[in-house]
Amino acid sequence: MAREGEVVVTGNGKPEGTHNPTNGSLCGFDSLHRLLQASLSPQVFQEVSRVLIGLNCGKALQGISLPDPAKELSSRHDFDLQAFCFLADKELLREPRIVRVGLIQNSIALPTTAPFQDQKRSIFQKLKPIIEAAGASGVNILCLQEAWTMPFAFCTREKRWCEFAEPVDGESTQFLQNFARKYNMVIVSPILERDVKHGETMWNTAVIIGNHGNIIGKHRKNHIPRVGDFNESTYYMEGNTGHPVFETAFGRIAINVCYGRHHPLNWLAFGLNGAEIVFNPSATVGELSEPMWPIEARNAAIANSYFVGSINRVGTEIFPNPFTSGDGKPQHADFGHFYGSSHFSAPDASCTPSLSRHKDGLMISDMDLNLCRQLKDKWGFRMTARYEMYAEMLAHYVKPDFEPQVISDPLLHKNPS
Amino acid sequence: MAREGEVVVTGNGKPEGTHNPTNGSLCGFDSLHRLLQASLSPQVFQEVSRVLIGLNCGKALQGISLPDPAKELSSRHDFDLQAFCFLADKELLREPRIVRVGLIQNSIALPTTAPFQDQKRSIFQKLKPIIEAAGASGVNILCLQEAWTMPFAFCTREKRWCEFAEPVDGESTQFLQNFARKYNMVIVSPILERDVKHGETMWNTAVIIGNHGNIIGKHRKNHIPRVGDFNESTYYMEGNTGHPVFETAFGRIAINVCYGRHHPLNWLAFGLNGAEIVFNPSATVGELSEPMWPIEARNAAIANSYFVGSINRVGTEIFPNPFTSGDGKPQHADFGHFYGSSHFSAPDASCTPSLSRHKDGLMISDMDLNLCRQLKDKWGFRMTARYEMYAEMLAHYVKPDFEPQVISDPLLHKNPS
Repeated sequence: MAREGEVVVTGNGKPEGTHNPTNGSLCGFDSLHRLLQASLSPQVFQEVSRVLIGLNCGKALQGISLPDPAKELSSRHDFDLQAFCFLADKELLREPRIVRVGLIQNSIALPTTAPFQDQKRSIFQKLKPIIEAAGASGVNILCLQEAWTMPFAFCTREKRWCEFAEPVDGESTQFLQNFARKYNMVIVSPILERDVKHGETMWNTAVIIGNHGNIIGKHRKNHIPRVGDFNESTYYMEGNTGHPVFETAFGRIAINVCYGRHHPLNWLAFGLNGAEIVFNPSATVGELSEPMWPIEARNAAIANSYFVGSINRVGTEIFPNPFTSGDGKPQHADFGHFYGSSHFSAPDASCTPSLSRHKDGLMISDMDLNLCRQLKDKWGFRMTARYEMYAEMLAHYVKPDFEPQVISDPLLHKNPS
Repeated sequence: MAREGEVVVTGNGKPEGTHNPTNGSLCGFDSLHRLLQASLSPQVFQEVSRVLIGLNCGKALQGISLPDPAKELSSRHDFDLQAFCFLADKELLREPRIVRVGLIQNSIALPTTAPFQDQKRSIFQKLKPIIEAAGASGVNILCLQEAWTMPFAFCTREKRWCEFAEPVDGESTQFLQNFARKYNMVIVSPILERDVKHGETMWNTAVIIGNHGNIIGKHRKNHIPRVGDFNESTYYMEGNTGHPVFETAFGRIAINVCYGRHHPLNWLAFGLNGAEIVFNPSATVGELSEPMWPIEARNAAIANSYFVGSINRVGTEIFPNPFTSGDGKPQHADFGHFYGSSHFSAPDASCTPSLSRHKDGLMISDMDLNLCRQLKDKWGFRMTARYEMYAEMLAHYVKPDFEPQVISDPLLHKNPS
């Protein structure tokens, strides 16, 4: 599968979709990139890639060679492993600032009927070799998926799943702190947070663990969905932590949790606070959002001149009690297919291929953070943005008596002559 | 070329790129959609389309059948003609509000060395059959490309091209007013404006002509580029018309001119003022922006629950006097290839294929404007957007003494243990 300048390191690189069509459709295809690579001539594939994944100006997306222990872990534990490198120009006054960043996507490990402690611990066990592979690969900053310690049970509206919630310094944080220390690695851990100090309040929170195993801070999801089976507003409210950027040993990072990716202002605010990498740990299903998935993260990376790491969980989770979806259709017990497809987007409009739509996976990318400022210098989006005008516009808009700026055709109700 | 549920009406539908590779590359390919359609099996093409152009949930993009006179004009004058239909759900309390919208892309007609009046008039003549085809097709709202009366001479920095500037009620507006009356058609006309009343000031302006031939108003480009050869800031300043939405006989429209598409706040402001269709008349070249082109407009349509019509001019324009590009390379006389690729994006994340990368073209789409509110009701982006927080954030950001919200790892300068 490997082409020059584009080494895809993978546990099982076969483009499943092209060989295993099910029920006359290709819904089972593994990744768009692999599907196109297997189906197109090299020449056509190259041109399609130029437009689709932004490999313009004759640049090729480069693969990186990972150490054998990482590849062995991927092979033994059957998770997708891919690694790429975003290039930046050499500068005369600054050294390159290359960091290696990892994204983990995974399915849950036990049926949702298993005892909660077993469910949680078995996810820990399942993630262990993937985190080890990241550590063995020299990953500097690693991000896990949204609410990674649990099934995404918010579709059910049952409050018993709240038991999975943990304080910021709880069991899952302690589990990851060990890896952070062992591998000198910053780890972003998105969990369901139980805020004991504020009366057992729930939040959807990302805990930022420093490379010495210390807790640097937390960020709480800013925008909560009310769409499809995403009944998250039943469980937690809009976050109260603003748009913090965490200055880590390896760069300035921020976290835009899941549904926040639909809000350009959320992306913008992290950018205004100086983020160089914004992670978007998510849980989203094919029927609802798959065509948006490759668009929103890349747009944010372009508009804000930073890198984006997008993560989506994998698989179909079946719950004990059926529930309805507010669409008049019969009750059912699953949320739909979480389609994985984790990937990186860069400020120069390029992006990596995506991880599998079906399998657990680790996506690694080297990125020279100097690229962020290089793109700001080139395109000048911050400078040309006229924020004063928009600050005023929004202040006006939020007033209850706001009147939109509308110019009506005075001949609106005249018949055509 | 036609498939069921996807009729591409075209003057010359042959996927040029697959048959005419030049210099070992496919830079000459006609459109990504046609390239993929010609290269992939129908089954794979369908699945790729599902993810790439957002035809999710089993929906197929439907073609519409155009009257023979339109097809004959396309054939005789050799311009690309495509027509599609975006579907919306039937509602119980509102009738469908289906409008037919058209986008025109074109190259200039004479060498840039020809007398200016001849250049302008020959573009008028060239556009005539394309506008007639739109009229014959029953188009309700038609938008032309940015600065359509002239070559995109802003790369040169020569002030003599200012002679192409016209007042809002000038020659080009009069030319289009006749078609607006004849076809009961709203026409958006982006020109280089000469504002005589304000001391011969230049603006990059869209004139909105009502379906009775009246001038409804104008909008001036809000964001001016300083990138590559886009030396537009030499010619005109940031617009002073805010973010007007024009209430026309066929729907509420707004115009985001060219570089404004890189600014999510610009898209947002038109949305907050109630736009249902936002046009993005542009002039942009392959080396600079082609991988961004399919991303930004679709993201705006998704985030703001409105339709977007994207237009880019076509061809390579060669100027009399060579100029340099601020990249250290030798002087040259052209701007690069304007890659056309005009298309529509819808609020449900779907989009049409694009017009040719090389040929003049008319893209037509029927759209039920009810889809905008349907998507707002479904996704609730406006309701969940927390604009108060961002109004405050921006008011804070624009102060010269703004301090970003940064949380630093206190162990930042400790060596790994």
